[in-house]
Parts: sequence; structure tokens; C-alpha cells
Amino acid sequence: MLTLGDIGEHEAICRLVKTLGNHAELVVPAGDDCAVVRLSGGLFDQVFTTDPVIEHVHFLPGHEPRRIGNKAVGRVLSDIAAMGAQPQWLLVNVVAPKSVSIERLEAIYEGMQSLAGRFGATIIGGDLAEGPVLELHVFGTGILPAGSALLRSGARLDDVLLVTGRLGGSIEGHHLDFIPRVEQGMFLRESGLVHAMMDISDGLATDLRHILAQSSVGAVVEASSIPATGSLEQALYDGEDFELLVAVAEADVQALLNAWNARFDVLLTAIGRVTAHSGELCLKRENHVFELLEKKAFEHFSG
Amino acid sequence: MLTLGDIGEHEAICRLVKTLGNHAELVVPAGDDCAVVRLSGGLFDQVFTTDPVIEHVHFLPGHEPRRIGNKAVGRVLSDIAAMGAQPQWLLVNVVAPKSVSIERLEAIYEGMQSLAGRFGATIIGGDLAEGPVLELHVFGTGILPAGSALLRSGARLDDVLLVTGRLGGSIEGHHLDFIPRVEQGMFLRESGLVHAMMDISDGLATDLRHILAQSSVGAVVEASSIPATGSLEQALYDGEDFELLVAVAEADVQALLNAWNARFDVLLTAIGRVTAHSGELCLKRENHVFELLEKKAFEHFSG
Repeated sequence: MLTLGDIGEHEAICRLVKTLGNHAELVVPAGDDCAVVRLSGGLFDQVFTTDPVIEHVHFLPGHEPRRIGNKAVGRVLSDIAAMGAQPQWLLVNVVAPKSVSIERLEAIYEGMQSLAGRFGATIIGGDLAEGPVLELHVFGTGILPAGSALLRSGARLDDVLLVTGRLGGSIEGHHLDFIPRVEQGMFLRESGLVHAMMDISDGLATDLRHILAQSSVGAVVEASSIPATGSLEQALYDGEDFELLVAVAEADVQALLNAWNARFDVLLTAIGRVTAHSGELCLKRENHVFELLEKKAFEHFSG
Repeated sequence: MLTLGDIGEHEAICRLVKTLGNHAELVVPAGDDCAVVRLSGGLFDQVFTTDPVIEHVHFLPGHEPRRIGNKAVGRVLSDIAAMGAQPQWLLVNVVAPKSVSIERLEAIYEGMQSLAGRFGATIIGGDLAEGPVLELHVFGTGILPAGSALLRSGARLDDVLLVTGRLGGSIEGHHLDFIPRVEQGMFLRESGLVHAMMDISDGLATDLRHILAQSSVGAVVEASSIPATGSLEQALYDGEDFELLVAVAEADVQALLNAWNARFDVLLTAIGRVTAHSGELCLKRENHVFELLEKKAFEHFSG
């Protein structure tokens, strides 16, 4: 008998996803930031995602309720942003011990509402049940023109890799207070210049591997180019940045950066390039030493 | 400070729902079995619902995993059936301790897949996170012609109240093995004869009150007419029947029953009538004694 502790989160999800069905209207199945389905009429696609936020795992009992609400909705909006979609509908399952105060839950809802409203999303339902620790399960949908969702699988040889914002050190507070890159995600999709996109939630090194695996390419990242909040190690391996990672043809990078800078104050930084060495992630250090990065990431259930 | 234990599930949900926003495309907000939104193009409405299934609350550690999966998806399909909609997309958040075996989770997924597939629904995503007890949070959508969703608020004076199947005693096993009334819900919507519909998940007496409150009417139920599995008390107050409760004009009842019996083996039974005494639920006993029923229901967080 294999437990979740034995095999870890990633392997467990892979095994469960294998049991799932398929459907003609299902454009992108589980495995990207969102699943994508074609809406009737064929003009629009709808994206679906869900994320749990659990006490002692994703937040601590002492954290302010509005910030917990911000994080719960922010994680889902970040997944929707990573497809380039406009967020639309949210539902929230709350699990709570009976000792939790209604005022605390109301303040969490204020945090959720505030962030949802900022990006045009509406909480339309949910449920409340008793359980041993406080949990928020947010389900979200978004909408975008049919066939326009930006996937992890679209990176091409010699594409330039770029990231929004700064990476690493999220545990200092950013993981509760971050603003998902919804406007930036839609802008990047509308530019028509982006080949692949995802959000960085498990650390750059781990998430970039998803793009490499799903696009059957490799990458070289320049250490000196990574916009790090703290150390290089943190920028590569810390989770919960909730920034966007994109692949763009080299010929289009300057045009994209010009349009970006005219619109946003947020950084958009070229950090590396797509190579033909499928699955290989290489770090170019400042002394021109190349280092092949091994897999290493925070995994739920491990340890 | 008021805790959830002080105010109970229903009051807590009411307070949280009050914090929610609104939106022009939101046809039916939180408070019915599903929220309903108008899809772009205007031809179809989409319904949304979510239900948690939590170890020690909704199932026990010794219950077979396939049955737990059946219940998790069944609860959501029952909500979708209660609107008269065709189930479409499902996402599942799993919370589990690391000691849970992957084989157990795969068997739960088999149970979920089996029921979903039977009714044309597809599991397209979800997430997996660590927590103290096993939980399944299923989020589901359905689709139906614009404006055709059957709501709790449509019951009219002198309507006949009918229920599908048999009520009470679900704890004996039905609560894990039930088959949601998806085909029956769509049939009832398509008949064009139903004024109001909901699913019975908290017991007939409790759920009928929701129709009465939202339709601003009362009801008399005949004790001898209720299709009870066990005692009258169980049929009125046991939860988790997952049958449908509908209100139909008296003139249409016979036509509806004729069409129903030609199509289904499941019972459809007239149990009472809508009255003008708003909010009052009256039980007519066999000796022609009328008894006003007080509120009494299982509530999470209470006690």
C-alpha cells in the first residue's frame, strides 16, 4: 500500500488525473493552470480552476482574516490570469470548527470580495461545513475568446523567457497580500505575441519545468537576470510568487516590452531562453559556468 | 464574539451571503440549490453549485471508497437536478492526511467517475492538499435553456406538492448509494408544468420550509400520503434523501403523473397542498387532526 506521504503530491495528482474522462468540448484537460472548455455558440472558451487554502498549511491562525481571504481568491485569480482569461464567477466552500467566530468569517469574506471585485469577479455561492481546521476552497471560472487561452505547452525553440514582478521571499508576507496579475495576463494574451504562459506558484525552477515538459523543450536561465527579492536560491525555489512566466519569440520581445512599459509599472524581465535539450533546465552563473539544475521543490505530503 | 457553534449553520450562511455582490448576468443568486448565470449569446443558462463531503461528518473512515465518491458527486448532481439542468463540468478538491493510500483515493475517484459518467458530467480538474481528515469538495456546473431553471420561489396558492421516491432512513446506506434524480429533474423542467422544485437534503419538513419562505406561501402535508421508508418522523426529519420536491397546479397533476409513469419506475407522490398561510407548515394526521410543525432539523455546528 502506497500512501500520499510515500509518493508525494505531484505523483498522486498524476495518478488521479489518469482516471479522468474526456469530452469533445473539453479543449484543455487537467494539467494546465486551468481546464478550458468551449462554450456553446463557439465564440468563447470558459476556464475552470480550484484551490484550497488550509490553516497551518497555507496560513496561520494568527494571520489577519482579510489577508487570508485575499490569498484564497488570489490563488484562483492567478490561475485564471495564467490562461489570459477574464475572471467571472467564484464559489467558496468554507470548512470551520464550531469555535470560529462569525466575525472572523465575515472579515475573510470581505478580503475575498475586495479582491474579486477589483478584477470583475463575483462570488455567487458556496457551502459551509464543520471540520477540524479552517479551510477555504475557492472555485473559479473565467472567459476568453475561443482558442486564445495561453498554455504551458506552447514554448518554441529560441523563445525568450520573461517573468513579471520579482521572485522569492514570498513567505515574508507577499503570499498573503499579493495582487494576481489578471490585467497583465489579459494584456499578454491580447498582444498575440506570447507562445506559452503559466503562473509561478511553486517556485521558478519547478514551474518552468512544467513548461519545458509540456512543450518538449529545455531552457537556460541567466542567474544575473532573475529579478530576485532576496537570494538567487529563494528566487529559484521559494513558492507562492504568483507572478507570470511567459515564452515569446526573440523578434517580438522588444515590441512587447515597449507596449508593456507604456501600460504597467510592474517589471517584465527577460531571464533566459528556450533550448532544444528537452526537459533540461540549465542555470548560467555570472562567471559563465553552466549548471544543470536538479529537481527540488516544496511538495505537500513529503517529508 | 459569536461562534459558529452559537449561531448554527443556517444563520451563519445567511450572514455570509449578505456580504456577497451582484451582477447583471447573475439570474439567481446564492440561496437556491444552485446559482444561475446567463451565458453569452443569451440562449442558455449555466448553474453552479458546490458541496463538501467530510470524514466523520458525511462519511466514516470504514466506508467503502467507491461509495464515498458516489456521495461526493451525487450531492452536487442532486443540486443540479433540482434546477432541472443537465450536469456538465466537475472539479474536485481533495484534502487528505499523508497516511491516506493512493489506492483509496483512486477508488474514490472511480466512484465519482462512475456516477458522473452515468449522467454526462466530466471531471476536468481539481487540486490535492494535506489536511487532518479526508475531504472531497466537488464543484459542478450544469446547463439549461435560458430562463427555464426551476426555483424554490415559484410555488403558488393551491399547488399540489409532490415528492420523488421514498423519504427517511437514509442513514441506513442510501446516503452513500443514492442515485441523484438528474433525468427526473430534466423531465420535470421539460414538462413545463412545474412551478417550483428543490432537492430534499435536510429532511422534508426543513426543505419544504425553504420553498414556503421563498414563495411566501404555506403548506398542508398529509401524513398518510408521505412515501416513508420507515417512520413518519424519519420521513419528515431525516436528512440526505436526495429526492425532488415539486409544486404543480392541481389541474396539471394527472397529466404529469401519466407522463411520469410512462417514463420512470421511480415513485412520484402527491403529499399535500400549498396554502395562503405564509411560512406555516401544517401536518394533517390520519385522524383529521391538524398539527402545526415547529422548526426542527439537523444543523451542522449546533449542539
